[in-house]
Amino acid sequence: METIALTRGVPADEALPYARISESLAGALQKNYTVILQYGNIGGYPLLRQFVAEQYKVSPQEILIGNGSLHLQDLFSATVIKPGDTVLVEQPSYDRAIKTFRRRGAKVYGIPLQGDGIDLDLLETELKRQVPAFLYLVPDFQNPTGISTSFEKRQALVALAEKYNFWIIEDVPYRTLRYRGEAIPLLRDIDPKHIVTMSSYSKLISPALRVGYMVAPAELIAKVTRLAEETILSPVLPTQAVVAEFIQRGWLDENVASLKKLYEPRMDAMVNSIRKFLPGVEFTAPEGGFFVSITLPESANYANLLERAQAAKLGLTDGKTFFADNLGDAPVDSSRDRFIRLPFCAITPAQIEEGVSRLASLVK
Amino acid sequence: METIALTRGVPADEALPYARISESLAGALQKNYTVILQYGNIGGYPLLRQFVAEQYKVSPQEILIGNGSLHLQDLFSATVIKPGDTVLVEQPSYDRAIKTFRRRGAKVYGIPLQGDGIDLDLLETELKRQVPAFLYLVPDFQNPTGISTSFEKRQALVALAEKYNFWIIEDVPYRTLRYRGEAIPLLRDIDPKHIVTMSSYSKLISPALRVGYMVAPAELIAKVTRLAEETILSPVLPTQAVVAEFIQRGWLDENVASLKKLYEPRMDAMVNSIRKFLPGVEFTAPEGGFFVSITLPESANYANLLERAQAAKLGLTDGKTFFADNLGDAPVDSSRDRFIRLPFCAITPAQIEEGVSRLASLVK
Repeated sequence: METIALTRGVPADEALPYARISESLAGALQKNYTVILQYGNIGGYPLLRQFVAEQYKVSPQEILIGNGSLHLQDLFSATVIKPGDTVLVEQPSYDRAIKTFRRRGAKVYGIPLQGDGIDLDLLETELKRQVPAFLYLVPDFQNPTGISTSFEKRQALVALAEKYNFWIIEDVPYRTLRYRGEAIPLLRDIDPKHIVTMSSYSKLISPALRVGYMVAPAELIAKVTRLAEETILSPVLPTQAVVAEFIQRGWLDENVASLKKLYEPRMDAMVNSIRKFLPGVEFTAPEGGFFVSITLPESANYANLLERAQAAKLGLTDGKTFFADNLGDAPVDSSRDRFIRLPFCAITPAQIEEGVSRLASLVK
Repeated sequence: METIALTRGVPADEALPYARISESLAGALQKNYTVILQYGNIGGYPLLRQFVAEQYKVSPQEILIGNGSLHLQDLFSATVIKPGDTVLVEQPSYDRAIKTFRRRGAKVYGIPLQGDGIDLDLLETELKRQVPAFLYLVPDFQNPTGISTSFEKRQALVALAEKYNFWIIEDVPYRTLRYRGEAIPLLRDIDPKHIVTMSSYSKLISPALRVGYMVAPAELIAKVTRLAEETILSPVLPTQAVVAEFIQRGWLDENVASLKKLYEPRMDAMVNSIRKFLPGVEFTAPEGGFFVSITLPESANYANLLERAQAAKLGLTDGKTFFADNLGDAPVDSSRDRFIRLPFCAITPAQIEEGVSRLASLVK
């Protein structure tokens, strides 16, 4: 029996455009090797910084390009978190981000996530108690749930950031991978004043290029850039130059189009398999991205699920890792044990159907 | 008048092997793109890890390859430095390393550097007072002085690490660039037990590849690797694959040979220019690397030297940045204001002679 991994949110191997990556490096080096191979340009490869600035309609001084957006989150956290600070996240949220904020000294609380974004009432109650260093959101096709924050909630969130004066990170690595429906404006499109936008090319070209970026007011970018220089000296410019050349040749749009074609049927296979094999479980069907998540009913057989799944050659991620502390340190109930993230991009529709079917038989 | 930069220790632009770097990426991706472009392999690109392990006669579990050795120093520091710890360095030492150790919470003391390595008597006096988290050394062609630690001192340092039980980082990015004389064994060749060896391909291929590594006991490597994964998720594998392919094709040895041919006359030009234009100043002539440093006599005109140099179109680095705190927090004298690092690799012999001549006229 074939092992089926419903674990990490990684791109499909067959979608990695390796020949065009080689050509992009060769082309970029031919034109500009003394910049690409030398120390310097801590803010990022100038041409890529310019492209990102144009995309977000800001100046290059409002852009920092680093070795992946997780590292930028780490550097941002080290810059803004002070002793005693809290950070708020969606509950559940991206596990590595939660860990990063904790490692940099914050107490991290989760605000329950509803089908259209976080619970605004609970958020404002918490804001009245303590204003956080920042609120971390994945507003488009969230990791792990696939949920997108509605336009109305985005407007309300921007207004709350203004009223209480805190940063919002909007982390949007999946945004471009919308398979259907209309794009919802970014929070920064509503008002950029309190917004730090982060994203990367990991899901659009290749994760191991480690090219991520942040968009924020120039003063904040300057602070994070200083810490970046002290920490890494220079970013990895050759992979940034690959991305710039890839964009310049028009290959990014082509690549995104082919990814959408590959991933949309996989998303549909996942949603349909859940409906077919796990009727009645709680989930929100996404319109893009990498993930769907389900919460099993209390009546499900979820004890030792990961071990039993492994024995049945089904890889699952521990759902608890996506949860931060409950607000007010409220006790933890079993819902986080019943939470399962189901990434769908790196496996075929047939594997997805087989995987969900195995999962269904395990939780009966 | 041409500006002459006697500032950063960077490779010569004309020595950056850009065509072979392009070919190396293309060749590596052709063979192994699903590993090189995908998440994973946090310990480093497997083939490169294997090559480095073979070079140091250890297992791959004793190697961590990261995005440059400064970042590995940062991660190592975060792993081993505890509140109240000290770190000892050569005085003077690499400015960015000093800053990194301080940022990670250590009090950093400098042990005076003599022509054959640090002052062992002062080191042992300090060890009796407080055992540091680690001692940071650049034993081959030190940055900033160009001094190499003698074999006898290396033996004594290894014995002290054993007696007092502390780590020694031997940071050896310049070691391979020996233009004459015999290589001195690494500290780890004497006894690896307390030794963390760090190095990189920044000076041998290209700095912006950001491929650095550490060699240490497997248990310590595992700890630093865990923090690396939490911080950067994955290293930048494409540039590590470039280095592996570059080595496999035999191009590293060829590149080192051509660098030696380019840099040796520049080192000689620097040493000869100092002797010619600045007779009597204190310095140690190196046998390799990137740097010579001088200490001007007290009688020299060194007030506002950086500003006056700039006006004379001569770039100089502030010598004070290379100094940590004095032992026992002894007061600072003027010697650090009279200290000047003179990198010689990125400029021609004619520029070196002109630069030192300008410097000499400024300090008269």
